[in-house]
Amino acid sequence: MTETSLAQDTAADTATGSPVRLQAVAAPGQPDVTPALEELYRGFEQELLVPLWTEIGDLMPAHPRSRAVPHLWRWERLRHLAARAGDLVPVGRGGERRAIALANPALAGRPFATPTLWAAIQYLMPGEDAPEHRHTQHAFRFVVEGSGVWTVVGGDPVPMNRGDFLPQAGWNWHAHHNATAEPMAWIDGLDIPFQYVTEAQFFEFGRDEISDAERVTPERSRSERLWGHPGLRPLSAASATPGSPLLSYKWAHTDAALSDQLLLEKEGFGGTVEPGHAAVRYANPYDGSDVLPTLRAEFHRVARGAETAPVRETGSSVYQVFDGSGVVTVGDTSWTVTRGDLFAVPSWAPFSARSEAGTTDSDAGALDLFRFSDAPVFEALKLNRTQKDA
Amino acid sequence: MTETSLAQDTAADTATGSPVRLQAVAAPGQPDVTPALEELYRGFEQELLVPLWTEIGDLMPAHPRSRAVPHLWRWERLRHLAARAGDLVPVGRGGERRAIALANPALAGRPFATPTLWAAIQYLMPGEDAPEHRHTQHAFRFVVEGSGVWTVVGGDPVPMNRGDFLPQAGWNWHAHHNATAEPMAWIDGLDIPFQYVTEAQFFEFGRDEISDAERVTPERSRSERLWGHPGLRPLSAASATPGSPLLSYKWAHTDAALSDQLLLEKEGFGGTVEPGHAAVRYANPYDGSDVLPTLRAEFHRVARGAETAPVRETGSSVYQVFDGSGVVTVGDTSWTVTRGDLFAVPSWAPFSARSEAGTTDSDAGALDLFRFSDAPVFEALKLNRTQKDA
Amino acid sequence: MTETSLAQDTAADTATGSPVRLQAVAAPGQPDVTPALEELYRGFEQELLVPLWTEIGDLMPAHPRSRAVPHLWRWERLRHLAARAGDLVPVGRGGERRAIALANPALAGRPFATPTLWAAIQYLMPGEDAPEHRHTQHAFRFVVEGSGVWTVVGGDPVPMNRGDFLPQAGWNWHAHHNATAEPMAWIDGLDIPFQYVTEAQFFEFGRDEISDAERVTPERSRSERLWGHPGLRPLSAASATPGSPLLSYKWAHTDAALSDQLLLEKEGFGGTVEPGHAAVRYANPYDGSDVLPTLRAEFHRVARGAETAPVRETGSSVYQVFDGSGVVTVGDTSWTVTRGDLFAVPSWAPFSARSEAGTTDSDAGALDLFRFSDAPVFEALKLNRTQKDA
Amino acid sequence: MTETSLAQDTAADTATGSPVRLQAVAAPGQPDVTPALEELYRGFEQELLVPLWTEIGDLMPAHPRSRAVPHLWRWERLRHLAARAGDLVPVGRGGERRAIALANPALAGRPFATPTLWAAIQYLMPGEDAPEHRHTQHAFRFVVEGSGVWTVVGGDPVPMNRGDFLPQAGWNWHAHHNATAEPMAWIDGLDIPFQYVTEAQFFEFGRDEISDAERVTPERSRSERLWGHPGLRPLSAASATPGSPLLSYKWAHTDAALSDQLLLEKEGFGGTVEPGHAAVRYANPYDGSDVLPTLRAEFHRVARGAETAPVRETGSSVYQVFDGSGVVTVGDTSWTVTRGDLFAVPSWAPFSARSEAGTTDSDAGALDLFRFSDAPVFEALKLNRTQKDA
Repeated sequence: MTETSLAQDTAADTATGSPVRLQAVAAPGQPDVTPALEELYRGFEQELLVPLWTEIGDLMPAHPRSRAVPHLWRWERLRHLAARAGDLVPVGRGGERRAIALANPALAGRPFATPTLWAAIQYLMPGEDAPEHRHTQHAFRFVVEGSGVWTVVGGDPVPMNRGDFLPQAGWNWHAHHNATAEPMAWIDGLDIPFQYVTEAQFFEFGRDEISDAERVTPERSRSERLWGHPGLRPLSAASATPGSPLLSYKWAHTDAALSDQLLLEKEGFGGTVEPGHAAVRYANPYDGSDVLPTLRAEFHRVARGAETAPVRETGSSVYQVFDGSGVVTVGDTSWTVTRGDLFAVPSWAPFSARSEAGTTDSDAGALDLFRFSDAPVFEALKLNRTQKDA
Repeated sequence: MTETSLAQDTAADTATGSPVRLQAVAAPGQPDVTPALEELYRGFEQELLVPLWTEIGDLMPAHPRSRAVPHLWRWERLRHLAARAGDLVPVGRGGERRAIALANPALAGRPFATPTLWAAIQYLMPGEDAPEHRHTQHAFRFVVEGSGVWTVVGGDPVPMNRGDFLPQAGWNWHAHHNATAEPMAWIDGLDIPFQYVTEAQFFEFGRDEISDAERVTPERSRSERLWGHPGLRPLSAASATPGSPLLSYKWAHTDAALSDQLLLEKEGFGGTVEPGHAAVRYANPYDGSDVLPTLRAEFHRVARGAETAPVRETGSSVYQVFDGSGVVTVGDTSWTVTRGDLFAVPSWAPFSARSEAGTTDSDAGALDLFRFSDAPVFEALKLNRTQKDA
Repeated sequence: MTETSLAQDTAADTATGSPVRLQAVAAPGQPDVTPALEELYRGFEQELLVPLWTEIGDLMPAHPRSRAVPHLWRWERLRHLAARAGDLVPVGRGGERRAIALANPALAGRPFATPTLWAAIQYLMPGEDAPEHRHTQHAFRFVVEGSGVWTVVGGDPVPMNRGDFLPQAGWNWHAHHNATAEPMAWIDGLDIPFQYVTEAQFFEFGRDEISDAERVTPERSRSERLWGHPGLRPLSAASATPGSPLLSYKWAHTDAALSDQLLLEKEGFGGTVEPGHAAVRYANPYDGSDVLPTLRAEFHRVARGAETAPVRETGSSVYQVFDGSGVVTVGDTSWTVTRGDLFAVPSWAPFSARSEAGTTDSDAGALDLFRFSDAPVFEALKLNRTQKDA
Repeated sequence: MTETSLAQDTAADTATGSPVRLQAVAAPGQPDVTPALEELYRGFEQELLVPLWTEIGDLMPAHPRSRAVPHLWRWERLRHLAARAGDLVPVGRGGERRAIALANPALAGRPFATPTLWAAIQYLMPGEDAPEHRHTQHAFRFVVEGSGVWTVVGGDPVPMNRGDFLPQAGWNWHAHHNATAEPMAWIDGLDIPFQYVTEAQFFEFGRDEISDAERVTPERSRSERLWGHPGLRPLSAASATPGSPLLSYKWAHTDAALSDQLLLEKEGFGGTVEPGHAAVRYANPYDGSDVLPTLRAEFHRVARGAETAPVRETGSSVYQVFDGSGVVTVGDTSWTVTRGDLFAVPSWAPFSARSEAGTTDSDAGALDLFRFSDAPVFEALKLNRTQKDA
């Protein structure tokens, strides 16, 4: 944590042998340090008690003060290390996936991009399979480059191509197989840290090998054929399941939706979030809710030369630059970013993005940003707040 | 955490100076330890990356394996130390409350009864006031003994008497004042750890002193007069607010509801959860939801000689014994408990309770248990599971 | 209907023999009357077609223009005729109930108080039983005077006393039995007209005789013992059913809730709908929704000398005067009303009530009004509108 | 109504001059006809009362027994008469629309296809405009043939082409203009009868002429550009409105969705409702609900040679044959149907459809059926029931 509580000193040795360590200190708002207080604190330690008055500053701040820090991971470096892992680390039962997670530097070396979010690069060599398993952690894949892997979800092979977003709700069986002669890398997002702290996790191994029938390589998954028609619900789909029944949101649709918004704005009809800032949320076609119970996914396009207003939100996000280049600002930190770069936005840190004008002669040059966050958790529990900084 | 991950050694010193520390180890499911792998791991450290294959056992267990442990706190000891704090620790702005929290011995001395729940004994001396503040953390009070304090919520003085349950949703102004010549102790429950890990917290100081008009000591709060009539909603209450508008659930009602259930069962009409086990959930009269968005509160009565079946649930609970005595079992641990004792039940630990037969000649002798848990979090996010052990 | 459509003349004889009768008329907004138009209209008749342009004024008015009219039924007369029916009309299988319905004078002699609501006086002689049946129509009983009947719902005998409100959702088995030596009258409210026009009705005969075990006369039904504790939900109640699980809302609670509101107002804390106007909605304790999916029930108390502001609402209501006396105004009609009187308020007719000051020396004298309406239908379908007349 | 109630004789003349007419009759379940009973009935008439025992058979049948009857309207005849109306009946303020409604022969010549549903053919001549208005009635357009009209909804011109479905929730301004040199016909569906009986209607005139800027003829409406991308919600769309924000569901999508289902079935993966029977529901992309609060719309494709199982539902439907030919059966009535034919299915009447095998040499020949119904009303009020006949 970024702030040491007043009276705790985990290094201190005490007579009690208790994990609780309390040290009376002279400070405003604290009781007078007397032998009697010291004795009381020894009593607290012995009974495994901690007073509020020594902890309140850390536990109940005026506004969220994240333990995490803003941080940027360069795609080039990630891909390089992932490719090296492709050479050295086999994929198989036990390790399960060749996935390498972003570790926020302020979170004690844990593989957590933020206190609630997991983001990893996954890498699969030509012809390789990642074995089937299922878990309660909600997950998705997002493809910033490459193609050739099919994720097989409940027996349905889902292709993965640049720009595709594949949500996968908890407790669905899934495996990956690379059907090509090229390695492929993509991004996995999960709520692993959230389920780790709330202790909700279940995990089961599935088949070591998927069947030959599942090794087919269709252009559209069966889920897309059932659910991928705008505004049309198959009558055969009787009831809701947690998470989206649509297993792939193809890039062509996302791209068209964002282009349409910018054009509508140009024609004078609005449609964007703010000038030059188009954005969509990936939604569950069954009920319009977030694609996953604990994770929200969005795609933002900042038109060439445009800039977004700084916004703070409770909860954290991870972004990946999909295309273009620009400058993103998280709190006091700014980075010039380019394709594939990933960065973490901690709770209540103001975020804004600016597309680089003049970096290209063409009319293109929008900054395209994929984002995922823990917003559904906050909304479900009525803990969400948003603030637009002036 | 209870399990050390394979490759992390937080004490290790490395050349990278990174918070990430990875150590290649020879183990099943792990890649061969080679100089190349060591070099890869150094690269991960430098880039703040952690592989899944070294962490998966800790992060994605087959079922929830709590970092917390079952633990019991004896009321007698708590009350004694709280009374001593009454002598030594003033209540005022800054420290805010004379509250002393249960610290689960497996949670590194943090004031967390479980990974998501805060439970504390609060103590107010004769004539004392705790100053007004508000916070997004959802809170409640439960009174196991004594009386004489009024909690003033948004200007509405709510009396506190044995058996009363007072929910208080986040962001409501509140103060406490002891209107009598006796000290009073009670239990505070909050979602402080949950909001700490998700980083949702806001906090504001209110007035240092409540007004004279708020120092009245009515038997019923205004909230009870508006909302405390069974099945009747005031038409003047236009819209929902997070959390229950009913600020006190009086003991007489809870007691009657539990007695009625046991009588209905005796008459052959069911009504109990299982034989001899009556239980109610405190509910928001506006919409029947949990009294607080992140906390569930229940009251259980185990009839004399009865025993509940062991149940596991995702999520954790804290219980306080309200009356009677008996034996409670959490996982492999059993305790004989009596009035006021508090204990923590970690996620997925099986829990059962048995009322002591023969400890009394009278017809009474039921074991009365107050319980609160983080169940609404799990249900809202579709992470809830329950399993009845045979 | 109150307005004859332009081109329809149901008495007219035409060559087509069709139920459709169209007559070309010279009127603003209508096509020129020519032989060709006449021929077109004959073609419409033959093919069972009706043009919009002749009907639009009737079908699509600027605001709801009810086919029903405001009307008052005097309790004294109703009770007298019901008692006479007690002498002459047996209760038994086939006729099912000795219930006599209010027939709005503008609804063609149909037993509909309004286009969607049924209200009837039901009468049971000493010792008499009304046989068991069930139907999809949602129903309730309200008792303006007397006592001695138990309604047996799914085997649970529910007492009926002055001021009690007994909701009974569709498809529950129910019978009535008079356990005393006195006849008893009460009010039945149902959605019979609504289900008649939407054609949703199912009906089944049950047992001709309830069992001896069901002839007991408890003071509280089992449903009250399980669900009648404010804010407390039995854990044994697993899931929702259509309509309230609480089968009686006792007068003592309603009376106390209304008194509390008027006192809170007097103390300066609001709580009423408007000055001197206390009101509660009967709510489903499971989820706070209306007690019945198609019917809302409320109780209004207009303090002595107070007056309510005229309000229009989409949808219709029936009121019964429970106590006091006063003047009620529906549209252009005003009546001085007293205990037991019933009146219908059509859709969008402004309604207000004034309690008679000076009619009594005592401090009492509030006008107590029971009300039921079809509001849940309008709210569920987003057709609700309310307008407060200045 | 199809059944005359026992004691009512609306033609009878009585001394009371009341709209209520009661006649004592000797019949099972009825009281003995005596002078006293006759006198009682005169009393009922005078007080505007109707007993349940004479009406129960009509009002509370064992199952829905619709006042409507199955009926078929031939498209050829409708279009012919509509074209003739194009010559004779101007479109303008007052009459508002050249719409000609289906009148169920058992509903007394009223322009109601079923007791709750309105279905009409609307016809617009080359260059013609239908003036702007808005109403609370929920409406849609469906195009079985032709093109060239744009419906301007809130200023957004929406093209209309064969197979397109255009929902339009209540209280949205709308006009139509024919931008071509050809007349065009289409189908309007509304909940006019439902709002007529519940008395919820509001109506307002808008501008007589739409602006030149609204006379543009884009291929896609702005609503489609914002909302027509599968699974993608524009972030700029802050909140829900009643009814779908997507104003056109284009035929290409509907056709593809149905083809995909039949192919999935062929490949062994299900996806159809039953063998050879593909079906989609038009859904609100905001929340997956029905496109209109009171109306459900679906499209069914019965593969060549396939047959659907007879199903009964509470509530009524209107179907239009979009393509192919076959035999449809409603209750005891069967018709051979072809493109454009419309038919009404009353509440609880069993419905099935069979595609004509052998009527074509090509592989095509599926029977394509557009359907709309009042199902959302029944589901919102928990009155829905479905029964598959063996």
